[in-house]
Amino acid sequence: MLKIKKIALDTAPENTAFLSCRCSIYRAEEFTALKKIEIVDGSKTMLATLVIADDPQFIAHDELGLGEPAFRRLGLPEGAQVAIAQAAPPESLDAVRDKIGGAEMTEGQINAIIQDIAAFRYSHMEIAAFLISSASFMTTNEVLALTHAMTNAGAILEWEQPIVVDKHCIGGVPGNRTSMIVTPIVAAHGLPMPKTSSRAITSPAGTADTMEVLARVDLTTEEMRNVVEQENACLVWGGHVNLSPADDVLISVERPLRIDTHEQMVASILSKKLAAGSTHLLIDIPVGPSAKVRTRSEATRLRKLFEFVGDQAGLHLDVVMTDGNQPVGRGIGPILEARDVMGVLRNAPDAPGDLRARAILLAGRVLEFDPELRGGGGRARAEELIDSGAALAAMERIIAAQGNATKQYSLGDITTEIEAAHSGIVSAMDCYRLGRIARLAGAPLDKGAGIDLLKKIGDKVAAGEALYRIHSCFQSDFDFALKMAKKNPGVTIDVQVLGQRTTK
Amino acid sequence: MLKIKKIALDTAPENTAFLSCRCSIYRAEEFTALKKIEIVDGSKTMLATLVIADDPQFIAHDELGLGEPAFRRLGLPEGAQVAIAQAAPPESLDAVRDKIGGAEMTEGQINAIIQDIAAFRYSHMEIAAFLISSASFMTTNEVLALTHAMTNAGAILEWEQPIVVDKHCIGGVPGNRTSMIVTPIVAAHGLPMPKTSSRAITSPAGTADTMEVLARVDLTTEEMRNVVEQENACLVWGGHVNLSPADDVLISVERPLRIDTHEQMVASILSKKLAAGSTHLLIDIPVGPSAKVRTRSEATRLRKLFEFVGDQAGLHLDVVMTDGNQPVGRGIGPILEARDVMGVLRNAPDAPGDLRARAILLAGRVLEFDPELRGGGGRARAEELIDSGAALAAMERIIAAQGNATKQYSLGDITTEIEAAHSGIVSAMDCYRLGRIARLAGAPLDKGAGIDLLKKIGDKVAAGEALYRIHSCFQSDFDFALKMAKKNPGVTIDVQVLGQRTTK
Repeated sequence: MLKIKKIALDTAPENTAFLSCRCSIYRAEEFTALKKIEIVDGSKTMLATLVIADDPQFIAHDELGLGEPAFRRLGLPEGAQVAIAQAAPPESLDAVRDKIGGAEMTEGQINAIIQDIAAFRYSHMEIAAFLISSASFMTTNEVLALTHAMTNAGAILEWEQPIVVDKHCIGGVPGNRTSMIVTPIVAAHGLPMPKTSSRAITSPAGTADTMEVLARVDLTTEEMRNVVEQENACLVWGGHVNLSPADDVLISVERPLRIDTHEQMVASILSKKLAAGSTHLLIDIPVGPSAKVRTRSEATRLRKLFEFVGDQAGLHLDVVMTDGNQPVGRGIGPILEARDVMGVLRNAPDAPGDLRARAILLAGRVLEFDPELRGGGGRARAEELIDSGAALAAMERIIAAQGNATKQYSLGDITTEIEAAHSGIVSAMDCYRLGRIARLAGAPLDKGAGIDLLKKIGDKVAAGEALYRIHSCFQSDFDFALKMAKKNPGVTIDVQVLGQRTTK
Repeated sequence: MLKIKKIALDTAPENTAFLSCRCSIYRAEEFTALKKIEIVDGSKTMLATLVIADDPQFIAHDELGLGEPAFRRLGLPEGAQVAIAQAAPPESLDAVRDKIGGAEMTEGQINAIIQDIAAFRYSHMEIAAFLISSASFMTTNEVLALTHAMTNAGAILEWEQPIVVDKHCIGGVPGNRTSMIVTPIVAAHGLPMPKTSSRAITSPAGTADTMEVLARVDLTTEEMRNVVEQENACLVWGGHVNLSPADDVLISVERPLRIDTHEQMVASILSKKLAAGSTHLLIDIPVGPSAKVRTRSEATRLRKLFEFVGDQAGLHLDVVMTDGNQPVGRGIGPILEARDVMGVLRNAPDAPGDLRARAILLAGRVLEFDPELRGGGGRARAEELIDSGAALAAMERIIAAQGNATKQYSLGDITTEIEAAHSGIVSAMDCYRLGRIARLAGAPLDKGAGIDLLKKIGDKVAAGEALYRIHSCFQSDFDFALKMAKKNPGVTIDVQVLGQRTTK
């Protein structure tokens, strides 16, 4: 038996194990070929990718090193004794090979694949093989089976209420933090909305990152249930709740490969919502030239796929297309976005009107799920709940129930203003580029980093007038962001010549 | 600047770099998202996958750790100063994404992809994406462009002679060590045959593993050229010669994923041969129920693809289909196979007749490439060169020119015989299973491990009579091999009942 040693290496999301090439118990050569091992302790088995080490200080001849994710997942103390064995490749890989050859996968095959992926039995390469073979060609029935398989691979929440609502935006538009306004409106109205959100992976802030400025978000399933029972709603990070865990593994491969097919998006989103116990769901698809979905016809195809799978899975689904031409609100980055959200809820005179309008539109559509409400009355009801302060009060109760933020965050004080090169009217804003600049400035890792927009599309600007302000907490981040903004600020200004506009 | 530290971890084939999460020079967080970095020293740049470490003893705050392949490839001493930067994803990935979407790749796109793969700019996931998207669908023009791109991505050998021959077997049949007999026959005849071979990856022995029992095989390009100029031929390991290096990277992903399409096989084999400067090539496709190619119609499709690409690339190509129903010769494993090869060359009375016959068939076809030889005379000439001892003499000169084996290897002395469960006639032998048993016994890592076949198809056996002998150098390997052989020995014996046979 080998003794476990914790190795302080972050190899997430993969499990990595380290064996000495002079191991006295196993012949290291036997294990190199397949590179995947099973680590066996009396009660459980875990898979890991094996790395052979030749340094007795790093790994002794009777030790098995485990990188951080593997050590955490195995859950045994250092020095505990384990056996290892060559892992057989997962049998479900045969179905992946058939799919590569052009076959349609059966429900049973998709189930087996997703079970294996959720159990970390697939290597990154093998996950890529599954994703790519499906990206080329996937029937709507396969998407439905994939959604079900992903839902069933993790925890499933159940609620007593007959209607449990949710909303989800497919993303791509910075500052679009409507969930943090829609959720308290719906809670104030009285519908249950157990909202779980992700942290940003490629964007400057996710709802979980922004909510964390105001409240604790890393709740367990039990804590989350208590908050929802008490306040109708919550705004928590999905990371501790184990909903659709295969989705997290798939995303860890999709992102670096930039695979972003409709089929995988639909299965990813709907599996999370089904696992969260939602019965009614509003999907927000922003459409714009620099957003995730670029044309209305693409958005329509995506809408139909959401509707097909939602209908088959028994989810009441409404899809709304929104304006994705520019960021929503003014702030981009956790603290700045939290400021905008609270401004809208507080009816502050300087709160961004576009964020308020968008949140009311979406909240109205969610409220329409309530059979008690007169058809068409959702929007007015949403407006009323904000104006009266009821939504703000609901938000404050949700924050109190989740627990106050564990830290006081402050806005980054290394700042500068990016100025207009010439006078004119702002005609376009590049969502992708502004998001990148905010990320370089430090968001979302530094809550106080990001961009504060001072102009939006349609605004007049004079040469030298500030377009936006960059905030950073560290000089090196600031320098990176500034360099990118100087190269191309992501804001287009049309010159006005005798009443006519020309893009310069 | 960071100081380089060598880390004794075998992360081949990928480059891996290690940075402290408390690094004083770079913010580790900035680098986690993309996970790929450029390591820059004044003169060169290398890509590596980054792992974040949290152990000052492992990596100090001003160090950059490099796993073994990365340290070797960068070629700088420990303590040398380097800068790092986030690596941009390779631009050629856009073409891979188009291919996933069903597009045909242009020659330029395929070139760019292969250049990036050969320069280690692709992660394993990205390589899998390229392979899978191509596995679903690849035109013959794409295969041709891929072959050219792979050829041109590494060194290309040039020879003065107008005809440079080679032979290649697509593999799958244990003991099929004909190259080591064909090469000295051809050398004795006088045609140049600069043979490079691979080591076994999933089989119990490659030609390089077996030749290593007799001679040095890790020659440099310069040494190889000298041997060929002096002796007409060589039998060296391709690993030091840098022919079609992208192929080695692709294989490191194809093997674990068990992707084995005709298209990728043809590009892989022909690119190596074109890079080696061959003008005439014989391809050997063994066909059998447990071989790589299972039916004649599959072999015919593969033959046509070889012919198409070979013709377009200006390579004179001959394809021969051989019997892949059982192992060739008696030994499986480096020492046992070397024994059979030398037995045939020495005209030993106990040399395996099937190996001799197969080698003469193939050598005859290679000799037919010689315009000086009368059409149809190849086979007789090959036979004459073996019978006269000329081939043996050529082999001895090749061994002397390459240098004697650096080590004396001996046959594994932990042995047992696997016996027939009942009397009858051997009717089938499972190439795949017998190869697996030989590998478990220790081949090719232990040159003396493997299987010695005592019966072949058509032989009569009595119950309890030995079918084959297992040889191991280590008890644990022996136990693994024996367990597998006991479960199913891989040999089928038909029972004779009153003159009739029935498979039992």
